Amino acid sequence: MSDLQNLISEIRPLDPEAVAAAREHQDRLTKPRGSLGLLEDLSVQLAGLSGQTPPPVPEPAAVVVFVGDHGVHAQGVTPWPQEVTGQMVANFLAGGAVVNAIAGRAGAEVVVVDVGMASPSPDGVRACKVRAGTADLTVEPAMTRAEAEQAIGVGADLAEELIAAGHRCLLTGDMGIANTTASAALVAVFTGAAPAEATGHGTGIDEETYARKIDVVARALRRHQPDPADPVGALAAVGGLEHAAIVGYLLAAAAHRIPVILDGVIACSAALVAQALAPDMVAALIAGHESVEPGATLAMRSLGLTPVLRMGMRLGEGSGAALALPVVQTAAAVLAEVATFDGAGVTDKHV
Amino acid sequence: MSDLQNLISEIRPLDPEAVAAAREHQDRLTKPRGSLGLLEDLSVQLAGLSGQTPPPVPEPAAVVVFVGDHGVHAQGVTPWPQEVTGQMVANFLAGGAVVNAIAGRAGAEVVVVDVGMASPSPDGVRACKVRAGTADLTVEPAMTRAEAEQAIGVGADLAEELIAAGHRCLLTGDMGIANTTASAALVAVFTGAAPAEATGHGTGIDEETYARKIDVVARALRRHQPDPADPVGALAAVGGLEHAAIVGYLLAAAAHRIPVILDGVIACSAALVAQALAPDMVAALIAGHESVEPGATLAMRSLGLTPVLRMGMRLGEGSGAALALPVVQTAAAVLAEVATFDGAGVTDKHV
Repeated sequence: MSDLQNLISEIRPLDPEAVAAAREHQDRLTKPRGSLGLLEDLSVQLAGLSGQTPPPVPEPAAVVVFVGDHGVHAQGVTPWPQEVTGQMVANFLAGGAVVNAIAGRAGAEVVVVDVGMASPSPDGVRACKVRAGTADLTVEPAMTRAEAEQAIGVGADLAEELIAAGHRCLLTGDMGIANTTASAALVAVFTGAAPAEATGHGTGIDEETYARKIDVVARALRRHQPDPADPVGALAAVGGLEHAAIVGYLLAAAAHRIPVILDGVIACSAALVAQALAPDMVAALIAGHESVEPGATLAMRSLGLTPVLRMGMRLGEGSGAALALPVVQTAAAVLAEVATFDGAGVTDKHV
Repeated sequence: MSDLQNLISEIRPLDPEAVAAAREHQDRLTKPRGSLGLLEDLSVQLAGLSGQTPPPVPEPAAVVVFVGDHGVHAQGVTPWPQEVTGQMVANFLAGGAVVNAIAGRAGAEVVVVDVGMASPSPDGVRACKVRAGTADLTVEPAMTRAEAEQAIGVGADLAEELIAAGHRCLLTGDMGIANTTASAALVAVFTGAAPAEATGHGTGIDEETYARKIDVVARALRRHQPDPADPVGALAAVGGLEHAAIVGYLLAAAAHRIPVILDGVIACSAALVAQALAPDMVAALIAGHESVEPGATLAMRSLGLTPVLRMGMRLGEGSGAALALPVVQTAAAVLAEVATFDGAGVTDKHV
């Protein structure tokens, strides 16, 4: 845990001077004050994170798709067979998945990382497997504490490698059949929500499966009694390997003051773990979209985040984060490029 | 009106075969059915408009900023002096306005058209002035029927010129101090809403000015009794020159089956006029964002449109339309580029 502790010790809140300067500059731009709504807030956050006003446009960007399988699949929480995880990895590598199309339009690189596939790592994937899928969390802890820490390290190392290569915006992605079950359990642990509140219909399940999924989450919580004051312990008990990797990815981005756009409920639930480890890390987080998963909404509330997009999406892969990327980049460009009332000779309104 | 009647006679609803093919193709893509929410709906609309499945990505794009002044400014409906219209035109031409920054990031051209500035057309603007600002609509009709028709022609000609030059997505923009007052009056006429429901705080006014603005709208409606069954007459009585130009712009785009992304309440109120002239023209409309102006929400409901973005914006200029452009283009790219279950060898869920 020494690397993790080092990362955490680097994390700071937004720079209050840059935040104040960005707010003041927004109010001098040739537009009615406040008329860009959330776009203004994003620009202020980016200024406070970078310590610069205006902030640099966060580019280039990369979306990392962390892939893991889930032992809880055996409980019948999803109609999708587990081999779809590996089939979708092949689809990502071939450029045929939704995240490829959306990231391609947004100019973001897609990196696929096996942190816990049940099947062997295929050629072309970053092979960082910690174990071949988690254990069934209704029966035993999903992983050991050491495995959770190792997976956190995988995510942190990936983020640091991408930042060292020049990336200035990181996006979360994920793939893992049954991973919304682990997400619901994490959301319940860290927000105090009941299993029925934290659990959603995932990629689309019928009501019988939904009831079973809620029961699975409730049984996992009863069995492990995860303690939110021990975030890594809770993550090991009821999380997933891709969740753990995302925790490390988020913490490393925050330590390096690089913005991270969260995708859906998997990333939001992982962010709750990261927030519990280092509360100031939320300074680096941008909620890409409001997933229809109720756990995502609960998590965003706990994180204090307002989603950029609200499009009724629930795919995962990083698709919602990638769709939000141009909006986030535009927020920085507006603050950098738009003329001020004084500079453009435009009369400000009679106050 | 013969040109206008010709345009209107060309307008058709979405192609039902392309719509059905696009829905069917969406359901074969390697993702849970429906999991892309509004992005799927946008792709289906673009297919139905173009008659092709998948539809071409709507690019290149142009945003036309139609500029007009308003005689109703004399009634004290805004704290901004009227000369700000011309100052902002200079800002657009210098590339220093918000719409320049946002359109620049999205790769869209910005065209500035004087359809009714009170001051002379500056160099660099497209000089299509119909008259030097409208008359005060609380005293007399804002413009004559002939002037309204001429301004509609300006907008239609611009759209046809841009389409002939290869543009495949048109965005609305507008500038005109006091133009949300005319918009509120149009929304009240075409939706039946009361003046207090249709009128908003525009670019930011205090409660005293807001009460005066509502009263101005109510007086205009009482004086002119605009008849929604005579759309051009109603437009002439209580609209603006930029509203009229946008009506023509929308109708020409719809006739040529080119998608138009609407910006805020000015465009949405103009779209109500266009819809009254040719109900099927809504097939071409995409609501770029949900402006905080209540008239925009009322108009979108009447038009049957769901906004792409909900960012709390209320600037105008085309800023919200330009911010939505990458999302709209991505919707088409997803349908064109993503692999199918069969094609990628991915197992569909147990149904």
